[in-house]
Amino acid sequence: MERVSDQPTPTLDLTADVVTLTEQLVDIESVSRGEQVIADAVEAALSAYDHLTLTRRGHTIVARTELGRPERVILAGHLDTVPVNDNLPSRNDGDYLHGLGTSDMKGGDAVILKLAATLPEPNRDVTYVLYEAEEIEAVHNGLNKLAQSDPELLEADFAILMESSRAEVEAGCQGTLRVEVRTTGERAHSARSWTGRNAIHAAGPILATLNAYEPRRPVIDGLEYREGLNAVGIRGGVAGNVLPDVCVVTVNYRFAPDRSEEEALAHLRELFAGYDVTVTDSSPGALPGLERPAAKEFLAAVGAEVSPKFGWTDVARFSALGIPAVNYGPGDAEYAHKKDEKVLISRIHRCEQALRAWLGGDA
Amino acid sequence: MERVSDQPTPTLDLTADVVTLTEQLVDIESVSRGEQVIADAVEAALSAYDHLTLTRRGHTIVARTELGRPERVILAGHLDTVPVNDNLPSRNDGDYLHGLGTSDMKGGDAVILKLAATLPEPNRDVTYVLYEAEEIEAVHNGLNKLAQSDPELLEADFAILMESSRAEVEAGCQGTLRVEVRTTGERAHSARSWTGRNAIHAAGPILATLNAYEPRRPVIDGLEYREGLNAVGIRGGVAGNVLPDVCVVTVNYRFAPDRSEEEALAHLRELFAGYDVTVTDSSPGALPGLERPAAKEFLAAVGAEVSPKFGWTDVARFSALGIPAVNYGPGDAEYAHKKDEKVLISRIHRCEQALRAWLGGDA
Repeated sequence: MERVSDQPTPTLDLTADVVTLTEQLVDIESVSRGEQVIADAVEAALSAYDHLTLTRRGHTIVARTELGRPERVILAGHLDTVPVNDNLPSRNDGDYLHGLGTSDMKGGDAVILKLAATLPEPNRDVTYVLYEAEEIEAVHNGLNKLAQSDPELLEADFAILMESSRAEVEAGCQGTLRVEVRTTGERAHSARSWTGRNAIHAAGPILATLNAYEPRRPVIDGLEYREGLNAVGIRGGVAGNVLPDVCVVTVNYRFAPDRSEEEALAHLRELFAGYDVTVTDSSPGALPGLERPAAKEFLAAVGAEVSPKFGWTDVARFSALGIPAVNYGPGDAEYAHKKDEKVLISRIHRCEQALRAWLGGDA
Repeated sequence: MERVSDQPTPTLDLTADVVTLTEQLVDIESVSRGEQVIADAVEAALSAYDHLTLTRRGHTIVARTELGRPERVILAGHLDTVPVNDNLPSRNDGDYLHGLGTSDMKGGDAVILKLAATLPEPNRDVTYVLYEAEEIEAVHNGLNKLAQSDPELLEADFAILMESSRAEVEAGCQGTLRVEVRTTGERAHSARSWTGRNAIHAAGPILATLNAYEPRRPVIDGLEYREGLNAVGIRGGVAGNVLPDVCVVTVNYRFAPDRSEEEALAHLRELFAGYDVTVTDSSPGALPGLERPAAKEFLAAVGAEVSPKFGWTDVARFSALGIPAVNYGPGDAEYAHKKDEKVLISRIHRCEQALRAWLGGDA
C-alpha cells in the first residue's frame, strides 16, 4: 500500500516499559495491507542501535545481532491486525490493556522490540523479525515472502513466534487439509425417482464414515495431539422436484505433526475410497522439536507449561525450513479478532522477563 | 394484465379442422399473466353458439350446456404457456405441429373448443373450462380461483383435464409433500472439534434412512402407483474451519393417492422422529376414481391405455372438489416447457374423435 500522507513517522520509545511500548504500537493503526506507517516507525526506532543489522523487505523488518555465537534463535511477530472494529485507541485499566492488536499480537511485538533494543550482547545470536500481512492470504505473508526472497535471514536453531499463548508454551502445530468429497448420480423428476440416482443419498456413507471415525491422539515429545476429521460444509440440490446429480461434502482434517501432508491425504483417500476426492487447501503441521538444546534451555528458562498447539500458525513455516519453533506470547487467543480484544498486562511483563533471562540479560 | 393495445381480437374458427384451430391458438401468444387476448378470442368465438351458457372470470372462460342430462362432465384446459423461447409462431411439418404451447396444452384446448362448438346436443351435459395461469403460482391459477369464487360452475360427475398424456389416460395423481429435516449442533473451531457438535455429521442417519427406505407401490383401481422419498437438497456449513451448528435436508415425498396429506406428513414425522421437521410445501394426491359410471364409459369409449399419473396436475383440484378426474390429452409431457415443443398431429385427431364418440356425436 502506498504511503498516503507526509505525516511524520510516529516515534517508538524502545526503552520505555514494555506495556507503554505496546500502547504505542497499538495506537498505530496497521490493518493488513496498511502496515507502511508502523513498519517505518519500527525501522526508524531499531536503526538507532548499532548492535543490530537491519534488513527491510516490503513492510517486514529483520534485525540481527552478529556476535558469532554458536547458536542463533529467532523471535518473530507480525505487525498487522484484522480490521478495526471501533476498538482503537488502546485503553489501560491497570490489569488489562484493551484495543485492537493488544493480544494479536502487539504485546508480543513490544517484547521483541524491547529485547532487541536493550540486549546488545545476548548469549545467543538473535534474529528479530517483525513482519507484515499475517492475517490475510499466505501469498502476502511477510514471513512467507522472506523465506522465499532471503532464506539466509531465517537461518536459526530455534524460533519463537510470539503469537497469543497466554505466556505459556505451545509447541508445534497441527496440519490442516481440506478436501471435497463428491458423489454423483443422475437427475430425474422426483415424481419418477426410480429413473434417476440420488447423489445426496449417495453421500450417506460419507457421513457415516465421519460419524464412526475415531480421531488419533498421538503423543509427540510428551505432548498429546488431538486430531479431528469434520465435515465443514455440504451442498447438493437442483430444484425442489429434482433428484440431484451432485453432492459435495467439504471435509477438514486436522492432523498431528507426526503426519506429513502427503500421509494425511493418503489417509483421507483410503477413508473415502471410491469417491471423488479433491484437495482445496493443505498446510503441513509442525513438530514440537522440544529435544533440541536451544528448545530445552528455553523451556527451562521460561518455566512455563507446555501444551500442544492445535490451530495452525506460522510456526509451521519455521518447521518447513527445518527450524523447531514454538508459540510463546502474552496474548490470549480467546480475545483475538474480537471487538473486546485485550491482553493481561502481567503476561507482557512475564514474557519479557523470561526471554531476557534466557538470552542472558538481567531478569 | 391490462390490455395494452386496441388491436382487434383475433378470430378463431371453431368449425375448422382441430389442427388448424390448434395453430390459431398457438399463434396467439399467451404467456401466464398475458392471457387477455386469447381469452377475448375464446370468449368471442364461443359466444356465437346459443347452446352454450358462458361465464367469464378474469381470463377464465366457462361454457356449459344446459340440457338437463342426468350426468355432467367437465373438459378443462389452461390457456397460458411458459415464456416464449424463440418458438413462435407454429410450424406444421405434416406429422408434427411445432411451437410453444402445442403440447402444453393448446392441442387439448382446440379439442375442447371444437367439441363445444360442434356438439349442440351431447349425451351428457358438458362444462367446458378454458382457464388462465396454470404455469405459475397456485394463487393465480384460474381453476383454483374458480373453485373458490364459483364452485357451482365446477359441479360434475367426472372431469377430463386435457394435459399432455400422449392420448392415453392417466388416472389420479400422486401427492407431493416437501419438508425440511433439520439437525443442530454446536459451533467450534475445527482445530478443537471436541469442543463442539457437528450438525452435518448428525444428518448421517437421515441420509441412511432415505437410503434404506422402500417406497410403497400400492395398487388403486387396478393401477400401480410408485411412491418416492428423496432428498432434493442439503445444505450446511459456516466456514472452512468451523464445525457447523445447522444442517438442513430438504426431503420430497411423492405419495400415492390412497394417502392424505396428513397421513403423508405423519409418515415422515415417524420416519424422522427426533428431528425438527418443517413443512415447506404440500399438495394432495387424487384418487383415480375409475369406478364411477362416467369414468367407466369414458374408458370404454376412448379405448386407451390407462396408467397412473405420477406427477402432480390440476386433476388433484377436481379430486379435492370430490370429482374424479383423469388426464387425457394429445400432448407429450416430454416436450412440455422445452424449446422444441411439438405435438403429434394424429393424437389431436384421435382425442377429438374419442371424446366426440363418448359424448354421442359421430366419430
